[in-house]
Amino acid sequence: MRRIPVDRKVFDAVRNFYAAGLNYRAHIDWANSRGASHKVPAAPDIGYRSAAALIPTGGEIVIPADSPGPVEYEGELVAVIKEKTKNISEKDALSCVLGYTLGNDISERTWQKTDRTLWRAKSADTFKPMGPFIVDGIDPMNLQIDVRINGRTVSSYNTRNMIFSVAQYLARMSRYVTLHPGDIVWFGCDGATLPALEEGDLVEVSNDAIGVLANRVLRAKA
Amino acid sequence: MRRIPVDRKVFDAVRNFYAAGLNYRAHIDWANSRGASHKVPAAPDIGYRSAAALIPTGGEIVIPADSPGPVEYEGELVAVIKEKTKNISEKDALSCVLGYTLGNDISERTWQKTDRTLWRAKSADTFKPMGPFIVDGIDPMNLQIDVRINGRTVSSYNTRNMIFSVAQYLARMSRYVTLHPGDIVWFGCDGATLPALEEGDLVEVSNDAIGVLANRVLRAKA
Repeated sequence: MRRIPVDRKVFDAVRNFYAAGLNYRAHIDWANSRGASHKVPAAPDIGYRSAAALIPTGGEIVIPADSPGPVEYEGELVAVIKEKTKNISEKDALSCVLGYTLGNDISERTWQKTDRTLWRAKSADTFKPMGPFIVDGIDPMNLQIDVRINGRTVSSYNTRNMIFSVAQYLARMSRYVTLHPGDIVWFGCDGATLPALEEGDLVEVSNDAIGVLANRVLRAKA
Repeated sequence: MRRIPVDRKVFDAVRNFYAAGLNYRAHIDWANSRGASHKVPAAPDIGYRSAAALIPTGGEIVIPADSPGPVEYEGELVAVIKEKTKNISEKDALSCVLGYTLGNDISERTWQKTDRTLWRAKSADTFKPMGPFIVDGIDPMNLQIDVRINGRTVSSYNTRNMIFSVAQYLARMSRYVTLHPGDIVWFGCDGATLPALEEGDLVEVSNDAIGVLANRVLRAKA
């Protein structure tokens, strides 16, 4: 098993930052129970985030001064692409992956509801912690992902409950877009994402093989 | 006036590919007249496209074999960011722009309607022609943009009709996201985008100062 640290070099190599968004039923059900009206996706249609929002483990998540909140975590599996890939089959799709890491898809829920796009709700500066290592030789469809706030476990799920698998996403994407070395694909989170993050919180996304992605939460001064 | 050719080096420097999407009233009215239900945006909320889809002038637009169509052009103004910028005022916003060029926001209208996101409708490989030059010293809010198919003018509008100006977009974006050198921002198109593109068509997006972005249309074999 190789372990590549997620640092500035990894971030600079991100040409395309893809994100599945909704990819677990319990997360969709939960979001709908609090007022969203998401449908269960009928196909693996990928979305986008901004590479400018990436920070490493140890970096600080800064909530903008005018954020009405709540600001919430979403602990996710991330695949990093190894090589230029087009038209790969589902069976072979995982061979284009360099390895897997963790992401925290920080989300400003008011802006997510009110804005026309997800740009500042999901991609404000510092809203995309990723790391701590890119690890190969693990099965992306059977990983336990836990989230802790100040040491208390607040989310715990297994990636086997994805609606569309890593291989299904990559195969379908590669039919229409060329995947590039360094591209990252985030695969969504399961279940609820509470409690909301508060200034001073330490939020950790954790997996035994990959390690712990740990970030402190700050709030910008007005 | 400086003229920088839009080539592979310019594409490789694109860290974030932002797109306004809906930014002209006549385009929104026209899209709604054919079945869309777009609201006039209440704020300059930016969207995303994929840098993997960029091609230069002279490159070929390849319609995927399974595209139901129609596939249409959208001739747009593009701003290229010069330097790292955060929290810039509307008054000063244009000072962070290296220069302006043209983009053709090729759009697969069936996928735009049916998919959960715009990923393959707007960012399939080759769907983002950009160029031919990045030009400075011009007023982005008074540019005539014409689109021609096989020499016939099919679209003609002035950028002064933007709903939110270039400066309004950049100032608001920079409050939440750091703009980086090489980032590109596309500002939408006005009016209708017909007729649809057919195999063999030559589509040109043109402005007197910037030049002509010319691309031939192909269709991939099944």
